[in-house]
Amino acid sequence: MPQKKSRKFRKISRAPITVPGYQFAGVHAGIKKKGNLDLALLWSERPARAAAVFTTNRLQAGPIFQGKKVLRGGILQAVVVNSGNANAATGEQGIRDAFRTAKRAAQLLKISPYRILVSSTGKIGVPLEVKKIFRALPRAVNSLRPDQIKKFAHAICTTDRFIKVVQRTGKIQGKNFTVTGIAKGAGMIEPHMATLLVYLMTDLEIALPFLRRKLKESVEQSFNSITVDGDMSTNDTVVMLANGVSGISLRSMSSAGVKKFGAILHEVCRDLALMMVRDGEGATKVAMIHVQGAKSQRSAKKIAYTIARSPLVKTSFFGGDPNWGRVFAALGYSGETFDPSRVDIWYGPIPLVLRGRPTAGRHEALAKKYMENKEFSVTLHLHQGSEAAKVWTSDLTYEYVRINAEYRT
Amino acid sequence: MPQKKSRKFRKISRAPITVPGYQFAGVHAGIKKKGNLDLALLWSERPARAAAVFTTNRLQAGPIFQGKKVLRGGILQAVVVNSGNANAATGEQGIRDAFRTAKRAAQLLKISPYRILVSSTGKIGVPLEVKKIFRALPRAVNSLRPDQIKKFAHAICTTDRFIKVVQRTGKIQGKNFTVTGIAKGAGMIEPHMATLLVYLMTDLEIALPFLRRKLKESVEQSFNSITVDGDMSTNDTVVMLANGVSGISLRSMSSAGVKKFGAILHEVCRDLALMMVRDGEGATKVAMIHVQGAKSQRSAKKIAYTIARSPLVKTSFFGGDPNWGRVFAALGYSGETFDPSRVDIWYGPIPLVLRGRPTAGRHEALAKKYMENKEFSVTLHLHQGSEAAKVWTSDLTYEYVRINAEYRT
Repeated sequence: MPQKKSRKFRKISRAPITVPGYQFAGVHAGIKKKGNLDLALLWSERPARAAAVFTTNRLQAGPIFQGKKVLRGGILQAVVVNSGNANAATGEQGIRDAFRTAKRAAQLLKISPYRILVSSTGKIGVPLEVKKIFRALPRAVNSLRPDQIKKFAHAICTTDRFIKVVQRTGKIQGKNFTVTGIAKGAGMIEPHMATLLVYLMTDLEIALPFLRRKLKESVEQSFNSITVDGDMSTNDTVVMLANGVSGISLRSMSSAGVKKFGAILHEVCRDLALMMVRDGEGATKVAMIHVQGAKSQRSAKKIAYTIARSPLVKTSFFGGDPNWGRVFAALGYSGETFDPSRVDIWYGPIPLVLRGRPTAGRHEALAKKYMENKEFSVTLHLHQGSEAAKVWTSDLTYEYVRINAEYRT
Repeated sequence: MPQKKSRKFRKISRAPITVPGYQFAGVHAGIKKKGNLDLALLWSERPARAAAVFTTNRLQAGPIFQGKKVLRGGILQAVVVNSGNANAATGEQGIRDAFRTAKRAAQLLKISPYRILVSSTGKIGVPLEVKKIFRALPRAVNSLRPDQIKKFAHAICTTDRFIKVVQRTGKIQGKNFTVTGIAKGAGMIEPHMATLLVYLMTDLEIALPFLRRKLKESVEQSFNSITVDGDMSTNDTVVMLANGVSGISLRSMSSAGVKKFGAILHEVCRDLALMMVRDGEGATKVAMIHVQGAKSQRSAKKIAYTIARSPLVKTSFFGGDPNWGRVFAALGYSGETFDPSRVDIWYGPIPLVLRGRPTAGRHEALAKKYMENKEFSVTLHLHQGSEAAKVWTSDLTYEYVRINAEYRT
């Protein structure tokens, strides 16, 4: 697991990183208390091709309606995000408020409101104070700068313990390109707090169908492969902008170049996703559940998720207990078919179950030692096929209970 | 919620209750340490019609294979249960050991081994020490008595904090009949501990198809309507015996009589199920999630379960926080379709959401007060249809994390 990348991130988050052709702002609109940044603005100097993935939660917040509508056009030039209020469970008024926010920003930026995405994160069931946003928007527009990405990253946070920014660069045919991501999220930590927001940017030029497909693939293997507490938010949004200012068009690139881009996008998404798991409420450990030898990828992922979500498995991670019995039992109730007498279970490099039978007792002692690592993996091999899936999860701790039980008391 | 019945149970558990035509024993075979009872025997003086419901976990323990086989005949006269070892993840040997246990008991009881059900509960992945069982069985047979139900109830326990016995009597056409249940289970508490075992007995005579149908119905609304941590065990078994010694045949009964029997069976199952929730690891509260106005019962139950299993909802119960936002969000990701603008959410008698919108703030204060009760209900009305479902759950507490994280350290 990429502990190394975590260090890299910290370095990046201190340096004022820039993204060719993009500008950022983060201001205080008064939705949060105490002068905290709560209004973020992202601006692309050129209209950018844009693709997005939205929450599958049926209780969709107002901004999700707005986002789905504007993304149909496939072009964005700005993103407005407020934190402190999710504008969810706010009915028709919530949808109107999202569109009004886009309209006001459009007037100030002198572009069509259909090129602006609106996101919200924070409390559920409280009407959005659009007046506060209207009042602060001119300030946000005026403070747009290429080097203000950290302010943007701060302004989208709710209960995050740290900001999440990742940048990777690539070189194709002698020219540089970048993929950059800003995210917020740490599980659905607090009662009325919504979750995962991710803004990805590149300076490549990418055709819309390809952008949409690549984003979907990368989201599947990153943000859709993590679980902190199994709860899905009403506001989850991942959006990617490609503004082409690098002068490189993906269409003109060799297949090796296209692959390089895909790999870099995947890395950025995975690193942001792992930051979210690390930032999970009260989390002390990150575990990768790796299911191999499954009949299908869908089946492998379903099994991995069942294990990753089991409260019994997650507490055993916290306790550092190599409790393969719980992992095996979770596999059993995943709903997927398998032959118990062919199952292998490994904790890192240590086999605890081979062909359905426990290995010698001393392996458990080794596994216990192995679980003292902050990041570890549990691998299951079903010996049924050749498909695999990885899911990342955190442990379930006293701190999780404290944060979630005592929030409003 | 039946707080009253909890008291009744305690009274019953002190008095030596008897079940017409049944005898019980509980002895120490040495599977558990410190002289704890770990081998239980149930004997019906007459061969009894028998129906059972077994775990759906695909990692089925040895005894489940044995149980499914003998239940095909529809007749049982004895049940042997060992605690301390689940005989699960023990492969072919585990299956053989279950059949060998039945055979040995059959020799001693002088009946066919196909009239004996074997159950096991305890550690996973450790071969069953059948010799210890063989050595203790004669003692168990010799100590069979009508008034030893408590010893049986103790001998099937693993981490239960209290034994679970419920008896109800009914009168039909001037004659008395009884329905009695003995259960163990408190969630899959400890690492290698299996879960739910239930033995139901009646002195009625009941035709097999009817017995099977009624048992299935009652299990669906009781043991299949509770969740402690969402994990399903490899050994879950609910079995019902009807030995007919009351001289009343259900076939000869009026439809009112049949209904009375069904209602009493349902009560016994529900009371045992609620005892399990109350005995959930570290549980301090029991909550009923009641979903109304759904399109189908299946849909109502799926929604109720999604809410009942949400770690965020369960921690809010622990914190006494009327956090309807989490309930609403869990409804959203249940996978079921509904119209958010028609949803009502009540905490007991207090409406917190009506037609998708939060009610006045003072209702939350009232709901907070209401949640100080040990047992409370959360009701959702979807206004989509007329189907409903109830699911009982416990809160998620520090104690849960402690029990499950620190077990082997």
